[in-house]
Amino acid sequence: MVQSVHRAVRVLRELATAGPRLGVTELAERIGVAKPTVHALLRTLESEGLVRQDRETGKYLLGPGLLQLGNAYLDTQELRTRSVTWADALASRTGEAVWVAVLADDHVLVVHHAFRPEGAVQILEVGATIPWHTCALGKAIVAFLPEERQAALLGGELPRLTGRSVADPAALAEQLEQVRGIGYALEDQESALGDAGIASPVFDRSGEVVGAIGVVGPVEHVLTDETARRKHAVAVREVARNLSRELGAGRGTAWSEA
Amino acid sequence: MVQSVHRAVRVLRELATAGPRLGVTELAERIGVAKPTVHALLRTLESEGLVRQDRETGKYLLGPGLLQLGNAYLDTQELRTRSVTWADALASRTGEAVWVAVLADDHVLVVHHAFRPEGAVQILEVGATIPWHTCALGKAIVAFLPEERQAALLGGELPRLTGRSVADPAALAEQLEQVRGIGYALEDQESALGDAGIASPVFDRSGEVVGAIGVVGPVEHVLTDETARRKHAVAVREVARNLSRELGAGRGTAWSEA
Repeated sequence: MVQSVHRAVRVLRELATAGPRLGVTELAERIGVAKPTVHALLRTLESEGLVRQDRETGKYLLGPGLLQLGNAYLDTQELRTRSVTWADALASRTGEAVWVAVLADDHVLVVHHAFRPEGAVQILEVGATIPWHTCALGKAIVAFLPEERQAALLGGELPRLTGRSVADPAALAEQLEQVRGIGYALEDQESALGDAGIASPVFDRSGEVVGAIGVVGPVEHVLTDETARRKHAVAVREVARNLSRELGAGRGTAWSEA
Repeated sequence: MVQSVHRAVRVLRELATAGPRLGVTELAERIGVAKPTVHALLRTLESEGLVRQDRETGKYLLGPGLLQLGNAYLDTQELRTRSVTWADALASRTGEAVWVAVLADDHVLVVHHAFRPEGAVQILEVGATIPWHTCALGKAIVAFLPEERQAALLGGELPRLTGRSVADPAALAEQLEQVRGIGYALEDQESALGDAGIASPVFDRSGEVVGAIGVVGPVEHVLTDETARRKHAVAVREVARNLSRELGAGRGTAWSEA
């Protein structure tokens, strides 16, 4: 491991989370290293375009180079590039927004978002992160992870985002068991009041789960109406299977059981 | 400067540009450092989620942590957050797509994209980079940079993307002079055949140019029709001024002359 690289990433994370502008002193305190060290890290990151200095205040902000790298990540994601047409098809078929996500630590990260075909202004959610246990995408992925990984996630932090978030490991473990039985996961306003979701896991040629695809929309459209819910679930599961097959997943891997 | 941080960024750049999957040996050759060093950098970057290893091939890819940081960059960009409503208004008024961009080295980086109100499928261009001299956004920004910065950019590489790209420094310098006179820049199929653009610079409270906003669309809509072009140019310049004022730019800075 390379300590200065860890520290450089800490600097970026602090600037990402702690507000837009921090000075050398504040950063040194937050990271717990000496000011000259932080200064050298900042100058290096600045020369790479990953950080920039506000000329007026002398404080530091994240730099445009990060957006280029983030975009390159999306472009090299086979799940994302392959999912674009499937996500559009699913959005047309269900009339709802479609999200594609991967797991990053204990959050899902939205890597593609197909807008709801009709309706008001929609905010692009690519890059958004959501605690895995509060959304259908996360439950769909985690249900098909190796057991030790699941146990670690169930034993980790399980914050509540709404009164409907499920934070009890035993209750979540039971939900994951159900997901394995029916091949899709549900969210009932567990990450945002009024919103619901249905998602299915996506597998690749190694047979491992690589992400999930699902619909997200008003609970009245997605869950309340029994007929609509069943139609949505069938559409989501079918699209997830097609996408898995395109990524090289064979029959006999978990997806064909789902 | 911190050498290992430079090298870590080099690893990320190689993975971003040289194709999706590289092994330790290939990376060591490309960067010109010893394999154990590259290995240590990769393990550190992997532990931070900025790189991941393909389990099947053992090769490395960019990791999801980069998308989170890229998104954090967008969220902390005052130009971007302030431009959202102005971009929507400009898209409605002109019927064309609207891009907001900043300068990163010798490219513009698209930080916001408001879709054309009507029309076919559109690809989100946030994160895209374009050589500054081949688009209206870049010319609008560079025209208002300090003279030495302009000279350096005019003296740098000026690739041709289409037969209409202008690669002659003297011709470009003359265009920049015109931009300063009328307050907007034009692109006539210089980055992609069939596409044209009109853009104006955006200034902040320090009076410096921080980016540009403009319309992008089929040359027949944007440039060919004289009346439409003039209407678009007026709309773009007006929105850029309003946005500058919102960012704290006072009268008497370059924008009020433009």
